[in-house]
Amino acid sequence: MISAAILGYGTVGAGVYKVLSMNRDLIKGRVGEEIRVKYVLDLREFPGDPVMEVLTHDYSDILNDPEVAIVVETMGGLKPAYDFTKNALLAGKSVCTSNKELVAEHGVELRKIAAEKNVNYLFEASCGGGIPIIHVLDSALTADEIDSVSGILNGTTNYILTQMMDAGQDFSDALKAAQDMGYAERHPEADIEGWDACRKIAILSSLAYGKHISYKNVPTEGITDIDAADMEYAGLMDMKIRLLAASRRTEDGVWAMVAPMLVGRDNMLYHVDGVLNAVLVHGNAVGDTLFYGSGAGSLPTASAVSGDVISAARHLRRTMASDWKAEEMELMPLDEIKHAFFVRFSGTEAEAEAAFGKISPLRLAGRTEEFGFVTEVMTESSFRKAASAGNVIKRIRIA
Amino acid sequence: MISAAILGYGTVGAGVYKVLSMNRDLIKGRVGEEIRVKYVLDLREFPGDPVMEVLTHDYSDILNDPEVAIVVETMGGLKPAYDFTKNALLAGKSVCTSNKELVAEHGVELRKIAAEKNVNYLFEASCGGGIPIIHVLDSALTADEIDSVSGILNGTTNYILTQMMDAGQDFSDALKAAQDMGYAERHPEADIEGWDACRKIAILSSLAYGKHISYKNVPTEGITDIDAADMEYAGLMDMKIRLLAASRRTEDGVWAMVAPMLVGRDNMLYHVDGVLNAVLVHGNAVGDTLFYGSGAGSLPTASAVSGDVISAARHLRRTMASDWKAEEMELMPLDEIKHAFFVRFSGTEAEAEAAFGKISPLRLAGRTEEFGFVTEVMTESSFRKAASAGNVIKRIRIA
Repeated sequence: MISAAILGYGTVGAGVYKVLSMNRDLIKGRVGEEIRVKYVLDLREFPGDPVMEVLTHDYSDILNDPEVAIVVETMGGLKPAYDFTKNALLAGKSVCTSNKELVAEHGVELRKIAAEKNVNYLFEASCGGGIPIIHVLDSALTADEIDSVSGILNGTTNYILTQMMDAGQDFSDALKAAQDMGYAERHPEADIEGWDACRKIAILSSLAYGKHISYKNVPTEGITDIDAADMEYAGLMDMKIRLLAASRRTEDGVWAMVAPMLVGRDNMLYHVDGVLNAVLVHGNAVGDTLFYGSGAGSLPTASAVSGDVISAARHLRRTMASDWKAEEMELMPLDEIKHAFFVRFSGTEAEAEAAFGKISPLRLAGRTEEFGFVTEVMTESSFRKAASAGNVIKRIRIA
Repeated sequence: MISAAILGYGTVGAGVYKVLSMNRDLIKGRVGEEIRVKYVLDLREFPGDPVMEVLTHDYSDILNDPEVAIVVETMGGLKPAYDFTKNALLAGKSVCTSNKELVAEHGVELRKIAAEKNVNYLFEASCGGGIPIIHVLDSALTADEIDSVSGILNGTTNYILTQMMDAGQDFSDALKAAQDMGYAERHPEADIEGWDACRKIAILSSLAYGKHISYKNVPTEGITDIDAADMEYAGLMDMKIRLLAASRRTEDGVWAMVAPMLVGRDNMLYHVDGVLNAVLVHGNAVGDTLFYGSGAGSLPTASAVSGDVISAARHLRRTMASDWKAEEMELMPLDEIKHAFFVRFSGTEAEAEAAFGKISPLRLAGRTEEFGFVTEVMTESSFRKAASAGNVIKRIRIA
């Protein structure tokens, strides 16, 4: 019997409690021992819920119980999650978490402490919900030099963009719909401004390239400026707009970025609609691989956390290998990142060609005051220079 | 330094040699020790190839060298691969393989021997080429009860079906094109009759459901009967025909099957074209997940084998957990498996409705001698009974 404790009985914590309970026998078979949730920490009471039998309001009950080998941190936020996690690791307990803020901010330090204590700090659920992408990078695609990671890592924004494209809604209506469906929070900034996806691509890129990438260094644009006309142009090009979180290893260095991008039908990410997530990974031997599934939700996220609990149980007192070094990755400056750009332009075709070279104009019915075109692949700084001549209404990068 | 030996310097073996060499430093960083290929076993000579320095024609060189901790079996076939593998495991060496025939036939026994010897028998490359699906089932989706596994597991047939659909080729021309491209062998039966996919779904289902499923018990149909008219009907229904290898855990038991099936646009497998592979896994917590990538080819397959070599190196003298029990899974009889069927029918609508109930006929331009329709979901035996009234030209299951 292996004892675990869950910190926080919110959506994810309750999901973990449920998964470990509903699949108890199966998990016992796979681990070789039963995993028992001995404590659930929450400040609230849950009258009538069976969790009351194991509920505690005092973290020291967990920290000081030598039977507890695995701590599940599903509180979110940096405080007190950081202290609770660090103290659990220092006490020789493995920690499994869904807390992307904490992993992005302190993950490399917490993995180091775990290794020093021969335990594990696991965070499959921090990126891509139920998609086992951390596992794949940590343990499966280990023979490859990874060149590229790009993904739809935020279900809220993908739902909004899908609604805008399919139902012709404008941004504010689609956001309202997402809030009504429970897919977006009342304060949706972390999602719609791209901050959530930014933390996730920083974590995935750190694992993929083996050096620490701070989310603070990842240029990030959200989707609040995307409008119905953008969607019409995308349709005209047989493309879709996705909030992509991407990083690449190029000859000029590694870059990372979060921004709405245009994606063509031959890219599998084109087909990822609604609240689903997907991550496309390219390795120098394996080529393109894609991992797809539910990026959020109580049970999918709990599946990932619970899978980590099982890994921790299978590796008690033995740190699993990881390629996340503390050394900071120097990212290419935004100015040097290259894309083709879709441009909405209010001047004449001659003005557009004077600034951007030969173009093929795209025109929307009934919209005579502007047209669109796609540039050659160019750096951000070259684009800015060309755009400085004026008349550029908007630009969207092409993936 | 960890020493490895490669058995067979064919397409995959040479790929493994190349991947371990081109990514040597990176792999050293991830393992903590260098992995050196000390021997390559092949009966042939390779004048001028650097492999000559480590080439041997005698397996006992490898078996009797205590330095060799990991054996890579990329010979294929059952003999002598089975004896070589078993002897390596008995000698305390881990074995990593791409040999699906051997894994499907003797995998459960070989994993048992590996566990008894505290080593590992790993076979990521046996299913889905570079897609890390074995890893996902063995180590990642471990908290889930898996309900369903279905995939496009054979790139050759997917290429042929894609050509038939997109280029309007008939089966024999598409097969010829696949042979010219090197995607199909001169004796393509193992692919086009579904035998390759059958072995793969037997392996994946054994891992997913935790009991041994013999490929001999999996009903298997190939794609040789699919013709241009089938593709036209599929287009009319906005569907594609895929050779699906599938298994399900239902209320009535577990079934497995390989057959061409019609797949709609809302199924991610619809979007998997050409030689690519994909596997859709449904778990009771995680929901739907999809894993996509190159199902064959020297480097993608070598990526998977080499990833296993790294796992074996990280787990020397320590067997990784696995849920593949020797106990035989009793599969549902074919007669009880349920699908909706697409039917091509040569009689009248009244005759079709007399046999199958209310139908909505589908008619191809210029083809008056038949029409198509889709049945309700029914068992294979109910279908056979309804079809026994006559006039059924063909039936294709709907996924």
